Amino acid sequence: MKSGYLRTASTFVQGAQTLAQRYYSSPALLDEEIEQLFRRRWMWVGRSDELPNAGDYLLFEKFGESVVVTRTKRGGVTAFYNVCRHRGTRMCGEPRGTFSETIQCPYHAWTYSASDGRLIGAPHMNEVEGFSRDDFGLHAASVHEWEGWIFVSLSRQPIAFEDAMAPVLTTFSRFNLAALRRVERRTYDIRANWKLILQNYNECLHCPTIHPELSRVLPYTSGANDLFEGEFLGGYMEILEPNESATLGGKACGVPIGDLPDDDRRRAYYYSLFPNMMLSIHPDYVNYYSVWPVREDRSIVVTEWMQHPDSLAGGYSPQSAIDFWDLTNRQDWHICEQGQLGIASRVYEPGPYSPRESIPAAWDRAYLSAMGHPGSSNAS
Amino acid sequence: MKSGYLRTASTFVQGAQTLAQRYYSSPALLDEEIEQLFRRRWMWVGRSDELPNAGDYLLFEKFGESVVVTRTKRGGVTAFYNVCRHRGTRMCGEPRGTFSETIQCPYHAWTYSASDGRLIGAPHMNEVEGFSRDDFGLHAASVHEWEGWIFVSLSRQPIAFEDAMAPVLTTFSRFNLAALRRVERRTYDIRANWKLILQNYNECLHCPTIHPELSRVLPYTSGANDLFEGEFLGGYMEILEPNESATLGGKACGVPIGDLPDDDRRRAYYYSLFPNMMLSIHPDYVNYYSVWPVREDRSIVVTEWMQHPDSLAGGYSPQSAIDFWDLTNRQDWHICEQGQLGIASRVYEPGPYSPRESIPAAWDRAYLSAMGHPGSSNAS
Amino acid sequence: MKSGYLRTASTFVQGAQTLAQRYYSSPALLDEEIEQLFRRRWMWVGRSDELPNAGDYLLFEKFGESVVVTRTKRGGVTAFYNVCRHRGTRMCGEPRGTFSETIQCPYHAWTYSASDGRLIGAPHMNEVEGFSRDDFGLHAASVHEWEGWIFVSLSRQPIAFEDAMAPVLTTFSRFNLAALRRVERRTYDIRANWKLILQNYNECLHCPTIHPELSRVLPYTSGANDLFEGEFLGGYMEILEPNESATLGGKACGVPIGDLPDDDRRRAYYYSLFPNMMLSIHPDYVNYYSVWPVREDRSIVVTEWMQHPDSLAGGYSPQSAIDFWDLTNRQDWHICEQGQLGIASRVYEPGPYSPRESIPAAWDRAYLSAMGHPGSSNAS
Repeated sequence: MKSGYLRTASTFVQGAQTLAQRYYSSPALLDEEIEQLFRRRWMWVGRSDELPNAGDYLLFEKFGESVVVTRTKRGGVTAFYNVCRHRGTRMCGEPRGTFSETIQCPYHAWTYSASDGRLIGAPHMNEVEGFSRDDFGLHAASVHEWEGWIFVSLSRQPIAFEDAMAPVLTTFSRFNLAALRRVERRTYDIRANWKLILQNYNECLHCPTIHPELSRVLPYTSGANDLFEGEFLGGYMEILEPNESATLGGKACGVPIGDLPDDDRRRAYYYSLFPNMMLSIHPDYVNYYSVWPVREDRSIVVTEWMQHPDSLAGGYSPQSAIDFWDLTNRQDWHICEQGQLGIASRVYEPGPYSPRESIPAAWDRAYLSAMGHPGSSNAS
Repeated sequence: MKSGYLRTASTFVQGAQTLAQRYYSSPALLDEEIEQLFRRRWMWVGRSDELPNAGDYLLFEKFGESVVVTRTKRGGVTAFYNVCRHRGTRMCGEPRGTFSETIQCPYHAWTYSASDGRLIGAPHMNEVEGFSRDDFGLHAASVHEWEGWIFVSLSRQPIAFEDAMAPVLTTFSRFNLAALRRVERRTYDIRANWKLILQNYNECLHCPTIHPELSRVLPYTSGANDLFEGEFLGGYMEILEPNESATLGGKACGVPIGDLPDDDRRRAYYYSLFPNMMLSIHPDYVNYYSVWPVREDRSIVVTEWMQHPDSLAGGYSPQSAIDFWDLTNRQDWHICEQGQLGIASRVYEPGPYSPRESIPAAWDRAYLSAMGHPGSSNAS
Repeated sequence: MKSGYLRTASTFVQGAQTLAQRYYSSPALLDEEIEQLFRRRWMWVGRSDELPNAGDYLLFEKFGESVVVTRTKRGGVTAFYNVCRHRGTRMCGEPRGTFSETIQCPYHAWTYSASDGRLIGAPHMNEVEGFSRDDFGLHAASVHEWEGWIFVSLSRQPIAFEDAMAPVLTTFSRFNLAALRRVERRTYDIRANWKLILQNYNECLHCPTIHPELSRVLPYTSGANDLFEGEFLGGYMEILEPNESATLGGKACGVPIGDLPDDDRRRAYYYSLFPNMMLSIHPDYVNYYSVWPVREDRSIVVTEWMQHPDSLAGGYSPQSAIDFWDLTNRQDWHICEQGQLGIASRVYEPGPYSPRESIPAAWDRAYLSAMGHPGSSNAS
């Protein structure tokens, strides 16, 4: 939904074009994306405050996997694949819950330690020659907490989280994100390739035609990008006075999210965090999205809104922010679906990006690089 | 539904057999049909009177394509792919409407001339080195009007319409088709391969068992075929006195469709126009069908009825003709679905056509020839 | 649901493991199973008493085939593919019915003898040179009656039924199965591979956790297997006093199914009959299942209950047996579905069977052998 104006013309690569058709319509390409991106990178799975106490767990279920993420006694998080080592049964079915000390498979009562995944009980297996419980602990997954979010990687050898997120590791610290509280969660089912949703988020050239409500608050020519090449992209837009925030009506819907410098009280920040997270920071609330491919032409978006705890206590309502983005997002989803339909045509060919689309053009480059498709430069 | 008796035995090729199983059950074969037939031939998309005024448009949406067909100021028709040259977005979503002078993409406001597809506006693209609007006009599709119908071809180099339709270009001129008015449109979803529907239309040997109502009006042994080899096939059947037309009840449901010779006032004509149109001409009304493959085992049929404008003004109702064919068509669709199920069996093998099925046998030959499958003769 | 204790340790193959992932998740593997197993073996299609009179028929419709099974005048059964030899049409649509003397295709009235499939009428085919009705009889399928059930084979050269079933041909004769009467039929749609259902049936190690109701009647450590290697597997469990049978409440729900020896009046027998039938024999009723793959991750189970005719006449109700198994089966289907989900994970690998799972381990071996996968031993 946003773009922000370019600091310098050099940030736009002349000749940049949209991706080729197969990136939007090939099931095999989606399989490759899952292998190269989603099974290798760190993925958002939830908020830390969803697991307040030791033994609390949530399930992360994507790409055929089910991962149990659990709060440990020491206060950290741990993650195991939800697959019994006996006959492969998915053990936990509820999306959230609390373990006592153990995870027990309901099929034949194999029992594992909830804190470290060790097998501690397996009826009648002592009758099997050479069987050792040490060989059959639950398979671990990698998990990391950052800025109040929990991330998981399905890779057996993931790049260290700090390395993966290096360009933005401390970028958001002034926004107090870890202390904010979720106030809403919505899920959308969109008939478009997941990348169309990322590209759409990364520019606001479309705002005058698609988003009349947003355009009254956030002029598409305002602001600047501070991240304009690589896997993390974005910047800010100026909130047009007398509006106070991006809400229906323009009034702030909460106290400031943190002790913000003056500049930040008049700005909205929009960043995409590769591969599939989008982060929107406003003076009085934060909303973010995770985008999940389901098929090459269908995606699920999960989005949440957060506010400072004092907003909830102080009688504020986030409704005007929720309604503002529900309206704006639906406008975006619709045009993304129209893009999916058009790109499927035999006559589609990559078209030219304008300098006002420098960020989606940069996103495409980061995507092609991450996919290992160097020959598929997006510059003609 | 019809056959008509053979003029001479020579029109039936001894040994003719039904097509092999793969022609009805292979998704890859359907892809080949779309490539070899539907994307190369002229296809019915609507009636000329659906676009009475300059700027009026209709969408033709099949085989993943969306084509905008527009009435020009000069009174002709023009057609463009509904794909913005910027980022590929499908621009028009409504099945029918009217353009002022331009087509504007709702995503980033690229604007095209509605009459010739030229790009006339593209915000911020002047900042792109070497960009020329002349390079980014809408992709054109071929379009042609004939007998009051509009046809489109998705081929980049289609055979000229007059050449494609040469055997029937003037055949129907005495029936006044261009002046008739549509009075009904129905759509059917059928769980059968599209060719089963064409084959079924092309013979009336099945009428005594499948169509008791039709058989009382149109004896299957009456009449004669005048087109019995090639891509255009059919002929007439005699309407059995005292019936006046093929309606429920047998009464005419309108004034004559034109200034018909006496013979034609007692006849019903049934023609199949390759690849997927079927045309039924009765003294007082005309109905026609377009048959669209959706999957190898599923098809959509769109059918319309037309009458002379004086029938509508004169207080006639087409209902008895609509009901007659709705009943008869449903009988046909059902048996076509039973054919689809049976042919899927491992024991199915091509069976022998009788001389009363000379027209479907000829249709199969034309089909195999158009597909470039000369080795797949349908004569054993 | 059952296991029974092992007579000797030698019946368990040390190192036996569950099958590899592809056996549960590959569509190509399912195609291979259909080819190697379901199209070659004898399959349950119904009960003999469903066809009491000459001309009565039932349809068997699986794997894209429709087979008409008919009672002959001599009292036997015969079977023909439901595919007209003319244009391949499926002729019969009703699942059950009665023929007079002939089967007539509704499309063009080709007519066949219902007793031997000969073509006896084909309108206008006498006009075709060299056409002989003798060449176009219906395709026959193999059919056999045993213990009151009807079995069909889709193989053109099936192994003789007596040879195929040799290990159990007389095993059940003391149970009077042919004289029993069906009292209920239920169908379940399960989101799990068909083999998970067979494996689940073949052991009761899971009963203490999954089946609290069953475990009160049938202790999983009771009984013994008498068929422990090969395609037919199973044995008995002891009914725990004071329970009389496996019913809700534990009371018998009918008179004894036959003149049973004393031992059999306190036992429940559970057998799996390769590939896809499961047979449960209780003192007062019999229930059995056929398991049908629909996709690699979805199956249909058809199950019926039978009782002695005197139970029905004597005012007994089978409801407590029906409810008992409906409850127990749903518990099983659910855990099979959890197995399907877990096995789909990238981290799944074959796990170790315990001696209490010697029968599913033996079933897997018989399965791999029947599939011709000798390299895929299930012993590590």
